[in-house]
Amino acid sequence: MLYVVGHKNPDTDSICSAIVLAYFLDGVPARLGGVNPETQFVLKRFGVMEPELIRSAEGKEIFLVDHSEKSQTLEDLEKGKLVGILDHHKIGITTSEPIIYLAKPVGSTATLIGELYFKNTLDIIGGKNKELKPDLAGLLLSAILSDTVLFKSPTTTDIDRKIGKKLAEISGIEDIQTYGMELLKAKSTVGKMAPEEIVKLDYKEFNFNGRKVGIGQVEVIDIGEIQEKKEKIYRILEEKLKEGYDLILFLITDIMKEGSEVLVVGNKEAFERAFNVNLEGKSIYLEGVMSRKKQVVPPLEKYYKEISNKK
Amino acid sequence: MLYVVGHKNPDTDSICSAIVLAYFLDGVPARLGGVNPETQFVLKRFGVMEPELIRSAEGKEIFLVDHSEKSQTLEDLEKGKLVGILDHHKIGITTSEPIIYLAKPVGSTATLIGELYFKNTLDIIGGKNKELKPDLAGLLLSAILSDTVLFKSPTTTDIDRKIGKKLAEISGIEDIQTYGMELLKAKSTVGKMAPEEIVKLDYKEFNFNGRKVGIGQVEVIDIGEIQEKKEKIYRILEEKLKEGYDLILFLITDIMKEGSEVLVVGNKEAFERAFNVNLEGKSIYLEGVMSRKKQVVPPLEKYYKEISNKK
Ligand SMILES: [Mn+2]
Ligand SMILES: [Mn+2]
Repeated sequence: MLYVVGHKNPDTDSICSAIVLAYFLDGVPARLGGVNPETQFVLKRFGVMEPELIRSAEGKEIFLVDHSEKSQTLEDLEKGKLVGILDHHKIGITTSEPIIYLAKPVGSTATLIGELYFKNTLDIIGGKNKELKPDLAGLLLSAILSDTVLFKSPTTTDIDRKIGKKLAEISGIEDIQTYGMELLKAKSTVGKMAPEEIVKLDYKEFNFNGRKVGIGQVEVIDIGEIQEKKEKIYRILEEKLKEGYDLILFLITDIMKEGSEVLVVGNKEAFERAFNVNLEGKSIYLEGVMSRKKQVVPPLEKYYKEISNKK
Repeated sequence: MLYVVGHKNPDTDSICSAIVLAYFLDGVPARLGGVNPETQFVLKRFGVMEPELIRSAEGKEIFLVDHSEKSQTLEDLEKGKLVGILDHHKIGITTSEPIIYLAKPVGSTATLIGELYFKNTLDIIGGKNKELKPDLAGLLLSAILSDTVLFKSPTTTDIDRKIGKKLAEISGIEDIQTYGMELLKAKSTVGKMAPEEIVKLDYKEFNFNGRKVGIGQVEVIDIGEIQEKKEKIYRILEEKLKEGYDLILFLITDIMKEGSEVLVVGNKEAFERAFNVNLEGKSIYLEGVMSRKKQVVPPLEKYYKEISNKK
């Protein structure tokens, strides 16, 4: 049986893309972790069930969406049969046999699914010619709005806007902006959440030239929402660092101001050198930084590669 | 400027796919080595110029076709900007930024270009909507026939046959079989070639868990063509082994008998264990083995991975 699955600590793109792609591939949508409040809002809004939680690839055919890095996927991926990947991140895996791989630098994985659908060419990646129903179109639109932070993130492309508009028509969403604000508010329930939950909300682990680096992110409409929890979050990160990390960053991204306060734990020199900044204290505000993928991962990866080459 | 380039020791698929994709991407077709006799026949047949020979990625945007492995591409790839990959082999690279990547287990890269063209969806990978002229259709058809050995190789899929037929119509090739035999004969000029040339004709280097492995292949219509050169080829391989190789295989593939005689130099135990055979002497005939990619690389990669895990 074919399982379509997004990354650990699934976000709305990982959950919604898994659901919709599984529909076209006649597979089972799956997830590797809990459904966050924003995604819960989306599933409820369009009346779609949560994907199945899986813990092992054993005996399964696997199609990955929204990621390819080993650190973000099923721990025993090699026990299953990886048949395909659909993603909008950097290429994070090598394989020992040919597979289907479609990646493209757009704002979300959902954008790619939408693009293939509207071009009637999902069969390029093994999909069936089926109709995209309003509920599933709503999921894809939500994933695009979530990943691109309402088309504001620097990862946003014209394709995201174009596909988003078409999906809105099918899904019956008349005003994308209004719906997007509802979505962001659902995301921004951090005010009510415990610091432990906030840290886990959207946390990704990376391996940069053998060094383990964690990068968490939370998006808020107003940085004040989280102000009093920052100290506690910092202590949680310090605790987490002991799990073999070289560095952990936590981005508190202010959607309205379009910038992020970055909490830095561990190898501060790596952070300072990678971003060419001077870190005084525990955190620094980086104007214009909203995208982990596009603005945080590349300089870190470059830094760790350089110091590794120097050895 | 965008350069579209196939692998080192280019075969017909690497050359023709680079030419045709460069046309759709408004880029420059390029190559990393000499044009083999089969490809020369194809270019002459359709009146198309050889791509430009390049040696460095510096200052260039690069789109790879027909490969992704570092050992098969530009040595200084990281000095250029890798923007995309179109391929039908296993995933052999990771990147530090999102790129376009389309891979699919079909018989040739040319098949994928044809499929995107006929679905009017080359823009998925950044291509323009242009007409495929008869000469370029002829190149793609030739690349499919070459890589699939006239649809006989086990890598052949229904998509290759379907796209091949459509390309034949555009290119004005009325009888695919007849043209295919002409092509294979052009390939099989090994009778007139020096052993040194035969070894280089289609030679690929791999890195399996840190071990350097070389796999060359020559396709013949009759194994007798090459019989008297085998001893010399073997000695050339023994010499080559000293360049840090753990193992070198050379496949003499009999297109008509649909099997390969494999010359084995270096770590013979690795070969025997990977293929579960008993090697007496310098070579062994493997019935049904025609595809390096599908039938030779996977068992070797698996073997080297296993011994590396045991350590
Ligand atoms: Mn995503
Ligand atoms: Mn090929």
